[in-house]
Amino acid sequence: MLTIHSLKSHNKWDNTLPPIERIRSGDVITVESKEASDGQVTPNSAPSDLLKLDFSRIHPLTGPIEVEGAEPGDVIEVEFLDFTTKGWGWTGVLPGFGFLAGDQYTTPVDLTGPALKIWKVGETAEAKFGEVLVKVPSRPFTGVIGTALLSPGKFSTIPPRENGGNMDIKHLTKGTKLYLPVFVKGALLSLGDTHVAQGDGEVCGTAIEAPMDVTIKVVLHKNVGLTQPVFVTSSVREQEFREYLAFPGIDPNLWEAGKKAIKGIISLLSRFMTPVEAYMLSSVAVDMKVSEVVDVPNWIVTAYLPKDIFPEEVRKELNFVR
Amino acid sequence: MLTIHSLKSHNKWDNTLPPIERIRSGDVITVESKEASDGQVTPNSAPSDLLKLDFSRIHPLTGPIEVEGAEPGDVIEVEFLDFTTKGWGWTGVLPGFGFLAGDQYTTPVDLTGPALKIWKVGETAEAKFGEVLVKVPSRPFTGVIGTALLSPGKFSTIPPRENGGNMDIKHLTKGTKLYLPVFVKGALLSLGDTHVAQGDGEVCGTAIEAPMDVTIKVVLHKNVGLTQPVFVTSSVREQEFREYLAFPGIDPNLWEAGKKAIKGIISLLSRFMTPVEAYMLSSVAVDMKVSEVVDVPNWIVTAYLPKDIFPEEVRKELNFVR
Repeated sequence: MLTIHSLKSHNKWDNTLPPIERIRSGDVITVESKEASDGQVTPNSAPSDLLKLDFSRIHPLTGPIEVEGAEPGDVIEVEFLDFTTKGWGWTGVLPGFGFLAGDQYTTPVDLTGPALKIWKVGETAEAKFGEVLVKVPSRPFTGVIGTALLSPGKFSTIPPRENGGNMDIKHLTKGTKLYLPVFVKGALLSLGDTHVAQGDGEVCGTAIEAPMDVTIKVVLHKNVGLTQPVFVTSSVREQEFREYLAFPGIDPNLWEAGKKAIKGIISLLSRFMTPVEAYMLSSVAVDMKVSEVVDVPNWIVTAYLPKDIFPEEVRKELNFVR
Repeated sequence: MLTIHSLKSHNKWDNTLPPIERIRSGDVITVESKEASDGQVTPNSAPSDLLKLDFSRIHPLTGPIEVEGAEPGDVIEVEFLDFTTKGWGWTGVLPGFGFLAGDQYTTPVDLTGPALKIWKVGETAEAKFGEVLVKVPSRPFTGVIGTALLSPGKFSTIPPRENGGNMDIKHLTKGTKLYLPVFVKGALLSLGDTHVAQGDGEVCGTAIEAPMDVTIKVVLHKNVGLTQPVFVTSSVREQEFREYLAFPGIDPNLWEAGKKAIKGIISLLSRFMTPVEAYMLSSVAVDMKVSEVVDVPNWIVTAYLPKDIFPEEVRKELNFVR
């Protein structure tokens, strides 16, 4: 079984990059992935270190990996077989970045950052928020995975696109099959930005960022005519928790509805931790669902906070009324 | 145990309506709910009947129910204990209404309606889409539930508001506790628009609309200071399916990202049924999740189509590639 080392990494989408490895349809490979800061954040980092980040180094991706025989119009199927984490991860708030960056509150709440949380990662990821020890189950996935773009040039890895890329979809985890369109000869697959856990939304801009090894099986399908990623997953139910406290955000603008929902959760959590800690925890564990988009003129995005991640005494308090 | 009959219904929020019943904190009551058309749609209706709907009769709500001792600043807790369906339900597309109303497609696809599907409802809701017999598990909930508004006047029941109302949140089902703010003396609770099943989004504008009896326990909490609904639910995991085909909608506008996701699902389903049937099925069974809102400038709403609702031969086809 081939292991592809992360020393060979790039952080722009560029279809002229030479492949670092060549694989065949059906191959199972293990791909080492650095965490998103390329080693600039370590288990010993302090919040202020985030202000010194060199952004030109963000998203080191391992690849590109050439898939023999892949041609434009084909599809590669990437089945996620296994993830091996390395004992730690981090979540941070960087000033000016994230869903609530620059937002005004009726009551001033500081979510600016820099803020940093270092997690101990095993079966669960553990960290203290305020005085509360939070345990989030590890459900590792690739934040970034994609094929080379059709267009020539160097493209930022930040936005997701028709090649996949920085999709940050938490269900791209063990057991899921992702289908990516092939735009150039050899497909040129790259991956990175691995996350230990994340809520639907990734609201503060980071998940539990962590280095890990990703084992995938790659299968080539000829002439499928797919124009963007799709995936088949059985990880939705197993990622769900037993019980949630849920806050509907109601607004004529879907984006604002989402913000109201997350602000509601932050407000409810602020009894136990600082607002910026609640913002980070929302990014890691709170799911945003689109409840309805048809009840004119008010749409609803609801934020779901799992109670299971908290100790019993906090779960009781999150019953909201005594 | 008190049964509150649906003969006594209203369909505007109006805090001057006289209560039809008075209950005490802790009471368990059964509330009859008509379906959303107020009997204008029946198991024998045809699609063209939707064009004759009298919209002034939409959303008959049973209530208002006075909660003894409830005053502004209090909260009423509504625990959903049981739902009894009545053997049938309907899903319709009304011209000009719904998430994709008026949308242009690259390839023209007709989603205009009128279109109507009558479901046989038991443990599952069953209907044919194209030649495919679809079985959606029954997970009944109240589309509309709310307290009287603070403002005087008559208000449409269509938009959800700070009093709850037409939230169409699919997790307001058995086992969930909903907390609603009290704005006027007696709280004045009403409910209706009951649904047998719905996806997060309710994209075509209707769910499986059906009459049913709703058994709830109402508990008054004094001086809570809640300004909008919140809820605690353990129904998320149990509502999830074993396997999904998922289509990420990627766009700089969250609303458009959602539309792309649903259009993707409609396109994938159109091998088996007409596009408007696929649109109705998406409304009933497809969940829209906000995957990420931070990867500037492209956000992702992913639509999740459960494969479990289809017969084996269709599930195989939905593996997307052979």
